[in-house]
Amino acid sequence: MKKHYLLTPGPTPVPPEVALKEALPIIHHRTSEFGAIFKDVSEGLKYVFRTQNDVFITSSSGTGTMESAVVNLLSAGDEVIVATSGNFGDRWIKICEVYGVIVHSISVEWGKAVSSIEIEKVLKANPKVKAVYTTFTETSTGVVNDIKAIGEVVSKTSAVLVVDAISGLVGQEFHMDDWKVDVTVSGSQKGFMLAPGLAFVALSPKAWGLVEESKLPKFYFDYKKYKKSLITSETPFTPPVSLIVALQEAIRMIKEHTIEQVWADCRLLAKASRAGMKAIGLELFAENPCDVVTSAKVPEDIGGKIVKILREKYGVSIAGGQGAVKGKIIRFAHMGYIGKADILVGFSCLEMVLKELGYKLELGKSVAAVQEVLLNN
Amino acid sequence: MKKHYLLTPGPTPVPPEVALKEALPIIHHRTSEFGAIFKDVSEGLKYVFRTQNDVFITSSSGTGTMESAVVNLLSAGDEVIVATSGNFGDRWIKICEVYGVIVHSISVEWGKAVSSIEIEKVLKANPKVKAVYTTFTETSTGVVNDIKAIGEVVSKTSAVLVVDAISGLVGQEFHMDDWKVDVTVSGSQKGFMLAPGLAFVALSPKAWGLVEESKLPKFYFDYKKYKKSLITSETPFTPPVSLIVALQEAIRMIKEHTIEQVWADCRLLAKASRAGMKAIGLELFAENPCDVVTSAKVPEDIGGKIVKILREKYGVSIAGGQGAVKGKIIRFAHMGYIGKADILVGFSCLEMVLKELGYKLELGKSVAAVQEVLLNN
Repeated sequence: MKKHYLLTPGPTPVPPEVALKEALPIIHHRTSEFGAIFKDVSEGLKYVFRTQNDVFITSSSGTGTMESAVVNLLSAGDEVIVATSGNFGDRWIKICEVYGVIVHSISVEWGKAVSSIEIEKVLKANPKVKAVYTTFTETSTGVVNDIKAIGEVVSKTSAVLVVDAISGLVGQEFHMDDWKVDVTVSGSQKGFMLAPGLAFVALSPKAWGLVEESKLPKFYFDYKKYKKSLITSETPFTPPVSLIVALQEAIRMIKEHTIEQVWADCRLLAKASRAGMKAIGLELFAENPCDVVTSAKVPEDIGGKIVKILREKYGVSIAGGQGAVKGKIIRFAHMGYIGKADILVGFSCLEMVLKELGYKLELGKSVAAVQEVLLNN
Repeated sequence: MKKHYLLTPGPTPVPPEVALKEALPIIHHRTSEFGAIFKDVSEGLKYVFRTQNDVFITSSSGTGTMESAVVNLLSAGDEVIVATSGNFGDRWIKICEVYGVIVHSISVEWGKAVSSIEIEKVLKANPKVKAVYTTFTETSTGVVNDIKAIGEVVSKTSAVLVVDAISGLVGQEFHMDDWKVDVTVSGSQKGFMLAPGLAFVALSPKAWGLVEESKLPKFYFDYKKYKKSLITSETPFTPPVSLIVALQEAIRMIKEHTIEQVWADCRLLAKASRAGMKAIGLELFAENPCDVVTSAKVPEDIGGKIVKILREKYGVSIAGGQGAVKGKIIRFAHMGYIGKADILVGFSCLEMVLKELGYKLELGKSVAAVQEVLLNN
């Protein structure tokens, strides 16, 4: 009778109120009943994105929507900047290259954030650049990039700013319109507290200008089809009905709690998690840590084993490192339906696993540090 | 307290045993626990497709997977044949054209099936054709195309046969390997008795030859990424975990009932539905009707109203006509979790709606005809 605790940066746990909606009888998508839900959800997404722009829903993982933000904005031979600080930033480069887009890449060392000053420099040197692609919270490293500062820089040029906010949206303060972001992509399985299977994308009028010019081929992800669907309240293709019905409930819960409160909750959990890591001698990996996932360095001789033992012995799922930092870091998520008690479970079990692996620590130390932050804030 | 009866050709009703699985706590997709489910489901799909080939799962609607079967097999300038008998066949043409593929189209009048003899002729005249795209059961008209005969013809050439079996698979007898089909695409929301959000594609070794040569751009739908995922039991992108867990239960139910019995059940419901339509003077629309959806002509002056009144007064959802036959036909689905009693509900309510609209009929007549078939088979 193993009990599971999901502390991974996506998928994240789904509240029972939302999960049960997924189990409701399917309704047909070409009905006024579904149309009303679709309309409500589309409006609710604007609230979460902090935007007046339309938000489209695609049936895909977040990567599918990232690809949509390349094929709908560009033509082969176009120049773009990709400012990357990790695995998911690098994905923008890979997608662009597949489509014959010329990439000026700005890569920073993993654990560091991208610099708006550097972006400004590369933009000046390359006036033909049509778009700047970057990442809000880089899930692979736990870093948050300063999108507001980047928005200031990019908005002064003719280029558009495209932000992968898949893991950051909902959990970390984000203002699409105020920060002058032109395209924001996100997914259902992180802060939205939903199962994976839906992705979202919002576009500014400036970005629509590029859509009109774009010549890259697309059919399933063609934004013009999705734009039309917002007018008719009928999706271009059969949508994941059960996930959209559940999304309505998730957005209702977020609105009830208020997005500002959700941001504050994650901020507190992040602060507590950082304190927990430090208390047992684990150095933080991110120089500019985000509010949705906390990453810390672990000794390389035991790094590969921590995640596995945590899951197998205690049912606690956290994430290890990807790519260059595989086996070198651990990552604790604190977004969506992950709460204070979950973080306490995470740290107390982590301590036991570290001890078992021969790492020197005083039991209860990280838990106390987490408690301290939770009590005093 | 309106009760809903879903008799549409996708989405179709989901059995409670399957729906509840969707509501289970999310498990992380990079775990041995999910890996075991993914492996079981991938094997189960082979059973349903009647194939030894690998079957890939994508997070998308069926159309996304149709597009994948274009971008993974072809290069711009390649020649293909599209044999279309309706709206979904036409979609192959639209997708191919977006990607600069040269289409030799064979279109038949709606309500008729495509001819393998015609395909043979066009193949002979165009020896450079790399693929023949067609549809198994054409949902927009209710026609079934003779894939076995088409497979005989295409397999003698160097071209591959790509079949959209989105609505037909599971419900209608289909043998991917025995019928020499090279690529079969399908979706979760029809015969699989699942919510929309998953799509499937199986490829023969002959089709893999084209994948190796293909130059069209792709990232999210790149088959090479999915092929790798079958070896590692780790999906390339975050998969719709809850839908895959539910799919495992749906496939278990299909296997327990046996696929042969599922085919026989749909065949009987189709026979009964055709008898019901005829008994109240509604002429069948499809010359070669399939087993998963029955289409019938309705008087044009009332055609546009039937679907709406049925849904609003009785909670019964059926489909009307699309495109060229909008308002001219109605379509009753009988696949997946649609059973004998559902068909009886459908016909008895249809009779009441037709009567209300001034159509001349004797109440109970179509119901009796359906009962007759069900009792005597």
